[in-house]
Amino acid sequence: MISLKNAQEIIAQAIAKLPLENEPGELYAPMRYILDLGGKRIRPSLTLLACNVFSENIDASINAAVGLEIFHNFTLVHDDIMDYAAVRRGQPTIHQKWNPNIALLSGDGMCIAAYTELSKTPAPYLKPVLDVFNKTSMEVCEGQQYDMNFEKIEKVAEEDYLKMIALKTSVLLAACMKIGAITGGAVQEDADKMYQFGINMGLAFQLQDDLLDVFGDEATFGKEIGKDIVSNKKTFLLIKALENANSSQLAELRKWIQIKDFDREEKIQAITSLYNQLNIKEITQKKIDLYFETALKNLNEVKASEERKLVLKDFLEGLSKRKF
Amino acid sequence: MISLKNAQEIIAQAIAKLPLENEPGELYAPMRYILDLGGKRIRPSLTLLACNVFSENIDASINAAVGLEIFHNFTLVHDDIMDYAAVRRGQPTIHQKWNPNIALLSGDGMCIAAYTELSKTPAPYLKPVLDVFNKTSMEVCEGQQYDMNFEKIEKVAEEDYLKMIALKTSVLLAACMKIGAITGGAVQEDADKMYQFGINMGLAFQLQDDLLDVFGDEATFGKEIGKDIVSNKKTFLLIKALENANSSQLAELRKWIQIKDFDREEKIQAITSLYNQLNIKEITQKKIDLYFETALKNLNEVKASEERKLVLKDFLEGLSKRKF
Repeated sequence: MISLKNAQEIIAQAIAKLPLENEPGELYAPMRYILDLGGKRIRPSLTLLACNVFSENIDASINAAVGLEIFHNFTLVHDDIMDYAAVRRGQPTIHQKWNPNIALLSGDGMCIAAYTELSKTPAPYLKPVLDVFNKTSMEVCEGQQYDMNFEKIEKVAEEDYLKMIALKTSVLLAACMKIGAITGGAVQEDADKMYQFGINMGLAFQLQDDLLDVFGDEATFGKEIGKDIVSNKKTFLLIKALENANSSQLAELRKWIQIKDFDREEKIQAITSLYNQLNIKEITQKKIDLYFETALKNLNEVKASEERKLVLKDFLEGLSKRKF
Repeated sequence: MISLKNAQEIIAQAIAKLPLENEPGELYAPMRYILDLGGKRIRPSLTLLACNVFSENIDASINAAVGLEIFHNFTLVHDDIMDYAAVRRGQPTIHQKWNPNIALLSGDGMCIAAYTELSKTPAPYLKPVLDVFNKTSMEVCEGQQYDMNFEKIEKVAEEDYLKMIALKTSVLLAACMKIGAITGGAVQEDADKMYQFGINMGLAFQLQDDLLDVFGDEATFGKEIGKDIVSNKKTFLLIKALENANSSQLAELRKWIQIKDFDREEKIQAITSLYNQLNIKEITQKKIDLYFETALKNLNEVKASEERKLVLKDFLEGLSKRKF
């Protein structure tokens, strides 16, 4: 069995070896740049760990895992163009460091590079892996489009929000789990359970992000607290608050959402206070716990020994306690 | 044996049946829009015809052919963003009709849709088809980057220009030929000959485009004459003229390239006159003829009966005589 740390090291080595030192440099250098900005390599590491649940030898999963990480970074590059984001992992985004055309084209190249790695999957698993990946990657595009659409509408229903974050975030984690399982030789039923495990873990993770933005500790969270509040982002918290507020609370919420000129801290405090009145922290935490429990149930139902599931169980438990 | 027209009809039907009537509409409707703008479907039709050289049954090539056409259209969508192009096939481009973010994301979706179709290639051919496609699609990105780079430099060498148009245009035609051959069961050597056939045909085609811009007949060419001259596009003609000009001709050429304020017709006439003095039409035509001859030689060397090659030979001959 490999540990999460082992998996991260294998992925780091494979990414370092990708043949991206090619010409023209304007196409390839941005790919190397974004991939070398790091990140925790959670997706490809989970792919290896999922493979390891079913097979001692994880070699068949490595190329697909790297492809999934390249794809994830490709979506970051194009999302950053669409969101006019200037900073990614503390460094300038590609369109900022080079220009939007270079970010667009090198992003395209990364999508192709992702498929190139996935295509190296051993023959018996190639078609099933591609089927999962093709479906998932289109869903990720759907999620991004829904996310952009939601910015322009006033009210988003809880159900629609959960669907959007599932598409934008969870399906890729789920695909990592399923592709790992497939390349480990899992039977269809277990591969599907692993997919569901990924979906529920992803939903819990995203809702944690929403919660930590408001109730996290700035020092441990590592990000500014209250950014979503300041930008009126339609998070799970805001959606539930709008849903549960009485008329005076609703008026107060709407006032803060509409006001253009405000003191940052005052807005954060006012909305947080409304969230407290409405028990939003507890409501969100309950939802998160439910997704984590369901994820654990999915993993428990996978037909493999407890020992083989241990690393993923530990990972899930660690995630459920995260404060950052 | 199927005719070019048969092939075009098969492709039209397959494209009409693509499942693109999905939600969110902002993602899928632009894909349907650009694919329905038409075009002659040359690439996927050639894929079917190339398959038909080696196999009476062309079913194994159809999904890949459609994937290649979707990929071609994906590159048009993203190229149009990069070139700020407002019109494509007489209609507004996607970023013009919707917005740049929608063009970017629906383009990404088309790249994924292309792979989704290619992934439906029957198992024995799947890996070789993906290998050709992965290599080619990255080369197309390289070609687009070189094209953008060349806009910013003063002098482009003939060799670099030919490499750029090979990457931007020919390799995709070549991949269509090779993927058609592979799905028709061709042996490696014949598949490689078909690839070379596509490369040489593509180069001839692109140089014809350069030539027709200056020496074409507006009525038959269907496009404005002299657009490349007016925009100082570094075509094969301009590159050869700059290479062969004496000092006074060079001064005249440079004057017209640098001048910001000019009469359109006067510039076209002056540069055309310089091209005439320098025999640029003949030099270019000779190069075109050489590529067509080499393409024919490549096709002749393919181990298949004359009868099976007839449709592609006719196509090549028709292309060599094109005035539009």
